[in-house]
Amino acid sequence: MKKIFDVILAYNERKGEAFLRSLSGKSPLFVCTIGTTETAKIPGISAAGKNPELTDYTPPADVELLLLGKCKCIARVPVTPEGIPTPALITMSALRMADIPALVASAGLNVKPCVPFLDLGGDPGRDIRSGNAVDNVEETLRRAMIAGENLAKTADYLVIGESIPGGTTTALGILMAMGIDARGKVSSSMPNNPHDLKVKTVHAGLKASGAETGAFAEDPLKAVSCVGDPMIPAFAGLVLGAASKVPVLMAGGTQMAAVLAVVNALNRDVLDNVAIGTTRWIISDRTADLKGIITQIAHIPVLAADLNFSQSKLDGLRAYEAGAVKEGVGAGGVAIAAMAKSEGSITKEILLREIERNYELLVGSK
Amino acid sequence: MKKIFDVILAYNERKGEAFLRSLSGKSPLFVCTIGTTETAKIPGISAAGKNPELTDYTPPADVELLLLGKCKCIARVPVTPEGIPTPALITMSALRMADIPALVASAGLNVKPCVPFLDLGGDPGRDIRSGNAVDNVEETLRRAMIAGENLAKTADYLVIGESIPGGTTTALGILMAMGIDARGKVSSSMPNNPHDLKVKTVHAGLKASGAETGAFAEDPLKAVSCVGDPMIPAFAGLVLGAASKVPVLMAGGTQMAAVLAVVNALNRDVLDNVAIGTTRWIISDRTADLKGIITQIAHIPVLAADLNFSQSKLDGLRAYEAGAVKEGVGAGGVAIAAMAKSEGSITKEILLREIERNYELLVGSK
Repeated sequence: MKKIFDVILAYNERKGEAFLRSLSGKSPLFVCTIGTTETAKIPGISAAGKNPELTDYTPPADVELLLLGKCKCIARVPVTPEGIPTPALITMSALRMADIPALVASAGLNVKPCVPFLDLGGDPGRDIRSGNAVDNVEETLRRAMIAGENLAKTADYLVIGESIPGGTTTALGILMAMGIDARGKVSSSMPNNPHDLKVKTVHAGLKASGAETGAFAEDPLKAVSCVGDPMIPAFAGLVLGAASKVPVLMAGGTQMAAVLAVVNALNRDVLDNVAIGTTRWIISDRTADLKGIITQIAHIPVLAADLNFSQSKLDGLRAYEAGAVKEGVGAGGVAIAAMAKSEGSITKEILLREIERNYELLVGSK
Repeated sequence: MKKIFDVILAYNERKGEAFLRSLSGKSPLFVCTIGTTETAKIPGISAAGKNPELTDYTPPADVELLLLGKCKCIARVPVTPEGIPTPALITMSALRMADIPALVASAGLNVKPCVPFLDLGGDPGRDIRSGNAVDNVEETLRRAMIAGENLAKTADYLVIGESIPGGTTTALGILMAMGIDARGKVSSSMPNNPHDLKVKTVHAGLKASGAETGAFAEDPLKAVSCVGDPMIPAFAGLVLGAASKVPVLMAGGTQMAAVLAVVNALNRDVLDNVAIGTTRWIISDRTADLKGIITQIAHIPVLAADLNFSQSKLDGLRAYEAGAVKEGVGAGGVAIAAMAKSEGSITKEILLREIERNYELLVGSK
């Protein structure tokens, strides 16, 4: 696949190339949208935390890392049960190298970060098996739109990312509720993607809400409120508010398909100004199929930072090549933004060295 | 006094002229810092609300007006007990005319606004007569600095304003605790400035905290925690974080002297990049003396928007000429920013017409 800087044009190559070239040398603002849900605590669903109860601490710790260079609500950086560190290390390294400003937006949290955050008025999500997962979806979306409209005036473009444990399962919930075939196609932060557990969880939620698969094809907010998570309407609102004014790079993996489905259903006109920015690990993930989901929704470009940790000296980074973590906290999109802002002088090798340096400082040398 | 655009160079004229010219044609971000305190509920202290209990609703209603063009937490725009409307009408009109983005930062609120706001982690202030008015002052300052550092990267300069009822009394508290002679010099939103009540209130607070006037000259955070309000460390933190990178216009009246005292005590180097932006009503206020306070602290420029409502067809605006309200919600500084951004094409007459239009829409035609 064609590359510009160290960015792979993974899908919709021509529009992707034009989009990426339009960002070259420009100054973005990164907004990290965070939330927590009880869905993440279903055993086996999420690896975004050492154990299920710790998933409440992962999003606030991630954004503390971005803004402070260290975590405060927990002593060390978030890790998977296998000890693989958060992709926020990638994001933080790219933000710092390219001097990109960052803001945090909370869609609903059990644990608040010890850094400033935009409160969008939402609450943490419930277990989607209840069929009644998220409150105040419309109000969260509305407030996020206001934030997006204002933030669009402060930067050449926005990069929006997320941190919400269990997020691929709730994304699957929204996609299935909207009639998009995403079974077996969403990614996982674990090498062995628990597709059956995710689908079973969504089916339980749909059943509890009294809805069939596809019942909410025209009602994305209802899909979110039944079987989604609070991050999605916050993220979608930011996109809807900003993308009519400036380009928006939606930074994430298969969860971006759920955001795309919501935005597409509410105002597809803004999508001319939108691309997905992710990592090579997502587009080469054989246990998932981002392209296979988004082609059912809208033909926006997918760009992927060509990160490759196979030659890293650090075990915890080489594990990314074995399918651990893959993406999150806007890692891929912010890496792309750093490369674009520096007009290519930040290469994947230079970025990896900075990530390794921060890894050794914060995690240790293993 | 010399004018550029419709801005009066009210103090430190030469530096003020250079500062103002450097803003011409540039794009600012407005940050409105809000908070509430029990001090505002002391009878006779504040006119920022129809009655003392309603002062909790004034800051959230003010920022709803800025971001939504209408209030949500209360049915109509905030008014003084005499029915004179909030200066947020001026701010909103100037923001819209000049297409200036706005963010809200909360330093501690009893009532949360129905719009996105940056949570800086603080709590509402207690009555300063307790001598123990504000918790977590250092942490609020620290978080605000992080926000200021990031926001400075998103705009050519920052305009920072405030809305906190009772704010001139708590500002007086900080100034007196720091040994700055501000008795009889702080402004009021009422035509009859209750200086005696304010001084008595501060003395009660100092006594309760076991401190003499001037005891905290070297410890501004202690001055805030004993007899201040939570808005001040939030505002000061934003200035400290931003002003090393971009110019900062501190938008307000005599409360800005308390912010200045805190910033000056913590890092006076940033003050080369700072000016106060206010209204003509503040600098011509015979019941107060902004210049007389700030000359005791640091020689930064004071700019004043030459607003004049004497010819307005609306009673509620003409009341500003009789000494009601005067300033608040960044009105003067945002008016200056709108004039500077438009390189003078937004004149005071054009701005007044827009303010009158919004007044009629939101308040009525009286």
